[in-house]
Amino acid sequence: MKHGLPTPIELPLGFTFAAGAAGIKASGRPDVALAEASPGTTAAAVFTQNRVVAAPVTVGREFLARTRGRVRAVLVNSGNANCATGPAGISVCRRLCSELARRLNIQTEEVFPSSTGIIGVPLPARMLVENLPGLVAARAHTATAVARFAQAIMTTDTVPKLASRSFPSRAGRVNLLGIAKGSGMIHPQLGTMLVFLFSDLAATPLELRALLGGVLDETFHSISVDGDTSTNDTVLLLASGRSGASLDHRGVQKRFREALVDVCRSLSEQIVGDGEGIQHRVYLRIEQARNRQEALETAQAIARSLLVKTAWAGADPNWGRILSAIGIAKPPIDGGRVDILIGNQLVCRHGACHRFDTAKAHAEMSKPSYEISVRLRRGRARVVFLTTDLSTEYVRLNAQYST
Amino acid sequence: MKHGLPTPIELPLGFTFAAGAAGIKASGRPDVALAEASPGTTAAAVFTQNRVVAAPVTVGREFLARTRGRVRAVLVNSGNANCATGPAGISVCRRLCSELARRLNIQTEEVFPSSTGIIGVPLPARMLVENLPGLVAARAHTATAVARFAQAIMTTDTVPKLASRSFPSRAGRVNLLGIAKGSGMIHPQLGTMLVFLFSDLAATPLELRALLGGVLDETFHSISVDGDTSTNDTVLLLASGRSGASLDHRGVQKRFREALVDVCRSLSEQIVGDGEGIQHRVYLRIEQARNRQEALETAQAIARSLLVKTAWAGADPNWGRILSAIGIAKPPIDGGRVDILIGNQLVCRHGACHRFDTAKAHAEMSKPSYEISVRLRRGRARVVFLTTDLSTEYVRLNAQYST
Repeated sequence: MKHGLPTPIELPLGFTFAAGAAGIKASGRPDVALAEASPGTTAAAVFTQNRVVAAPVTVGREFLARTRGRVRAVLVNSGNANCATGPAGISVCRRLCSELARRLNIQTEEVFPSSTGIIGVPLPARMLVENLPGLVAARAHTATAVARFAQAIMTTDTVPKLASRSFPSRAGRVNLLGIAKGSGMIHPQLGTMLVFLFSDLAATPLELRALLGGVLDETFHSISVDGDTSTNDTVLLLASGRSGASLDHRGVQKRFREALVDVCRSLSEQIVGDGEGIQHRVYLRIEQARNRQEALETAQAIARSLLVKTAWAGADPNWGRILSAIGIAKPPIDGGRVDILIGNQLVCRHGACHRFDTAKAHAEMSKPSYEISVRLRRGRARVVFLTTDLSTEYVRLNAQYST
Repeated sequence: MKHGLPTPIELPLGFTFAAGAAGIKASGRPDVALAEASPGTTAAAVFTQNRVVAAPVTVGREFLARTRGRVRAVLVNSGNANCATGPAGISVCRRLCSELARRLNIQTEEVFPSSTGIIGVPLPARMLVENLPGLVAARAHTATAVARFAQAIMTTDTVPKLASRSFPSRAGRVNLLGIAKGSGMIHPQLGTMLVFLFSDLAATPLELRALLGGVLDETFHSISVDGDTSTNDTVLLLASGRSGASLDHRGVQKRFREALVDVCRSLSEQIVGDGEGIQHRVYLRIEQARNRQEALETAQAIARSLLVKTAWAGADPNWGRILSAIGIAKPPIDGGRVDILIGNQLVCRHGACHRFDTAKAHAEMSKPSYEISVRLRRGRARVVFLTTDLSTEYVRLNAQYST
């Protein structure tokens, strides 16, 4: 395809995109990206739960509060997280927003800043400022520009991550485009998760916040690679209103929500799937939990266990490690009632060994992607949680970083 | 040395030791160990906090409660954890205790059972029962017998782990001997931590419990290799009373506590130090915490982070990962006030980059053992927490296990 994307994308009305190479990445690869939004664009964002946050998270949160959810531009750099950079890091971030605002003739607070890369190194502001004119000049409402944006926000990602959906409505076609970065097993700190969702729906910031909050649990909160939460993680949803369709219109709310879940789920899977260190994607189905929270916490405890993840790397049906991980999970689960299945084969029943075909289980676990189900026998809630094995390659790559 | 121990040991009065090979380990190596204690021996035990517990933990806890802290024999097998084995596992455990009790002419409840090895495989009781006569016949109050006991409880340990101390008192010399197993980075589930502490002090079970509880925090609770808590972890302290010295005697309480800390700390370090997968032992000093709990939770959060541990494997002074791990720790620490030192070099001040000599930091982190200090600026509490890097060898070994 001409724009270099693996699949055609739905381009939402009201946005232009651009990217450039400011020289932050020593490789000379693109490291700065811009999205401009038309007047009246509304926004909602969700940030990292890490208490140590990068300067752009502090500034972005403040700007969104000041404008009450209005955004006219998104400015992203990769290669440097602008985190643990003290008051100077905040100043640099503000200055970049202000320089861009001047060139776009908008308010400084209408720029949403984002950074990803190494922590604790001052952000070279000058390089970025000098790159702004070229960036502004390059803006385009094209798939090629979108592809460049997706490329420029990558750090250790090996492929750009995009997903889009559209659906008809009485007022006009509604488009949703998601662009993400985050590379599972490789340098997950550099691999901060950034997600930008562009739509031409008409919605208030409050409506967007409700929509976004409603889909996070079953998408980005249901994936885990290494259990770490970055200092820069951000999910931003923008709505230009240019489709003419609003949530009051018949069917739009439901269909937009579906599109949002689809796009976010696709981006989640792309993030988990990226990275040389991954051999297996594991869908953890936690069933018969008392409530969703309990199911999620159980999944997270399993996905955090080094012993479980290394067993997966060896396609080893050592379910005792899963049971043991459940035993130290937060919910007070009785291990003696737990069933565990590898694929569709029962391997542990009521917390005890159940005769099973180990060769078959090993074969199942040798697939690039498979399911492990855990029944807690406590209620009716369930989640499907996507995680990965832990390979020697992960350790090798993360041990090599920075020195 | 004749008994094969690296250092001379202090042999407490009132105990005999023996070991044998029952054939649970396919290698034919020793896999069953016995310690007999003289009449009147008191005991206190601390068990794993994992809710999924092995049969011997359930049975041992029940027996200790029934005898109100009296133990006449300790029976340990390695190679099979007797965990996730259902009601049958409990029966097998009871039967072994009863068979041994009959041969030693003691009560079944006076036998303290312990197992370590693979989870979810039925314990071959017959093999063990058939081995009991030989085991009972071999009992001896010698350093050689102690060395055999220490060997027989090993699983993936590469070296036996022993430490002992003694001190004079008016009533007579008091001896304390500790034998442990647990092998840090290799198969840490097989590597369940078992610690048996034999002393000839005279003390009530209540006094022993207070003594043991008082030293765990600064010893076994201050080490972490992979953040997992096994289903079989046990620390048992026995007191035969044969030295004639009791805690009422002048200086005995203080000196016994010191001896207990020394022995437990030495065993902790031996556990963390064992394992092919370890390249670095890291002493995490958490300082200026509000209280001990906060310091410990901060240390645990750092020691749990895969990103931190892999950076250590590469001797990479990437302190941003430590700061980020602190940001998701349980205590509500303000990352903006945190200082971090590698060795004696300040690398992060008030949560921001501080100019430092990276070559020097890298050299420090290349040592087999070094310190990282974190100042929280919240109070005066501190802990020293011992942990390790995460190497590709760890992953390789744990991925290979069982298949």
